[in-house]
Amino acid sequence: MAIDSSLLKQFDELIARRGYTNRSEAFRDLIRDRLIETAAERPETPVVGTVTLVYDHHVRMLSDRLTDMQHQAFHHVLSTLHVHLDHDNCLEVLVLKGKSAEVRKMAEALISTKGVKHGRLTITTSGAGL
Amino acid sequence: MAIDSSLLKQFDELIARRGYTNRSEAFRDLIRDRLIETAAERPETPVVGTVTLVYDHHVRMLSDRLTDMQHQAFHHVLSTLHVHLDHDNCLEVLVLKGKSAEVRKMAEALISTKGVKHGRLTITTSGAGL
Amino acid sequence: MAIDSSLLKQFDELIARRGYTNRSEAFRDLIRDRLIETAAERPETPVVGTVTLVYDHHVRMLSDRLTDMQHQAFHHVLSTLHVHLDHDNCLEVLVLKGKSAEVRKMAEALISTKGVKHGRLTITTSGAGL
Amino acid sequence: MAIDSSLLKQFDELIARRGYTNRSEAFRDLIRDRLIETAAERPETPVVGTVTLVYDHHVRMLSDRLTDMQHQAFHHVLSTLHVHLDHDNCLEVLVLKGKSAEVRKMAEALISTKGVKHGRLTITTSGAGL
Repeated sequence: MAIDSSLLKQFDELIARRGYTNRSEAFRDLIRDRLIETAAERPETPVVGTVTLVYDHHVRMLSDRLTDMQHQAFHHVLSTLHVHLDHDNCLEVLVLKGKSAEVRKMAEALISTKGVKHGRLTITTSGAGL
Repeated sequence: MAIDSSLLKQFDELIARRGYTNRSEAFRDLIRDRLIETAAERPETPVVGTVTLVYDHHVRMLSDRLTDMQHQAFHHVLSTLHVHLDHDNCLEVLVLKGKSAEVRKMAEALISTKGVKHGRLTITTSGAGL
Repeated sequence: MAIDSSLLKQFDELIARRGYTNRSEAFRDLIRDRLIETAAERPETPVVGTVTLVYDHHVRMLSDRLTDMQHQAFHHVLSTLHVHLDHDNCLEVLVLKGKSAEVRKMAEALISTKGVKHGRLTITTSGAGL
Repeated sequence: MAIDSSLLKQFDELIARRGYTNRSEAFRDLIRDRLIETAAERPETPVVGTVTLVYDHHVRMLSDRLTDMQHQAFHHVLSTLHVHLDHDNCLEVLVLKGKSAEVRKMAEALISTKGVKHGRLTITTSGAGL
């Protein structure tokens, strides 16, 4: 590979701060990240998604509504981790499996539910073939 | 130790079926299990408990009620794992930390909640000193 | 039902301490618990099990070995929750699904692994039909 | 607020696809997301992070190494959910709590560990005050 030395230097500084001891490992990670991102743009790609939700459990019926939504799609929800952050607020992390478009649709429905304060979807894959 | 050979033989058969390859390891496990059980009988002993709950999420307000109970004692609830077993039924595992009496009281309150079909508490410790 | 009044009185006291406000609910819980326990004695019964493990993660290769065992039976392991209790000790809760005999066998193999300080299996069902 | 009608129309179409039934709710979500993102840029802000890792558990000592790293920072790791994706690959989701810079540093160390195929950090907050 022919890469400009000033670009490489900046890259080396960046990855050193991120804990890499090896430039090749950092390159491989960069490539895998981009491959996953690109593959997940196709609606039919099988992906795994983690959805992070923060909400106030005092909002009436919100736990019930979120649980119902998960059960309607229970074959997509591998499992859910719930952490009680303080007296009012919960963090919930769901692990979803399915086609990219299905996982996105479900994540968006959860995140847009009234009462959910913050939500983010991370898409990855099973890692097979990478 | 002087142990009757017929008793030892039965013990060896039992532990072989359970996957032990070593009698001493099986003895140590037996002793630790009994020590934990006995210590947990004292209400002040610091313990870790896992509560397994099975319930039908369609029961109105049940998710809300269980979430509320967990938040009222949120400093005792380390985290909760939720698995959607089928269209109707959930399994929830809570990890609790506190004095033995507190953990039991909270587990009993969760298990006795109307709509919870089955619940069990397992008590263990942090393992420190064992 | 004809139940001795002194027996009922003791039962009422017990369930009041456990948080029940209603004797029928307590009876139903008692019956379901016994039904599940009895059904789980048959090796072919489909069950859900939660295995609680406490171990010192410093034991060389123990995390690796436990992870390997779970992957060999990964279609039985619904998911695993890991809590870091202190600098040395971990609590791991696995949710297993399968026939009663399979779930027991796997739980016993995990619990008897050298380095695991304490382990317990709780058996329940999906709750369907209860 | 004065917002261009063509811009609003595009926004309404976007949020309808994402499941919102109410434009104000979508605005509030957008604002909260931006507030959290901006606050998390300051290294001292208390945040909650979820780290998603995919790795092949056959890589020698990798489970051990990841478990060790988590224990060294165990007061930052609220809990970890582990899902066995297939015979080879694991998904692990960690919930971290701490100052923004600490959470990032720990996430980067985990993601850059040799053998981890893919990793992503999502930063959120406890939701207090939002």
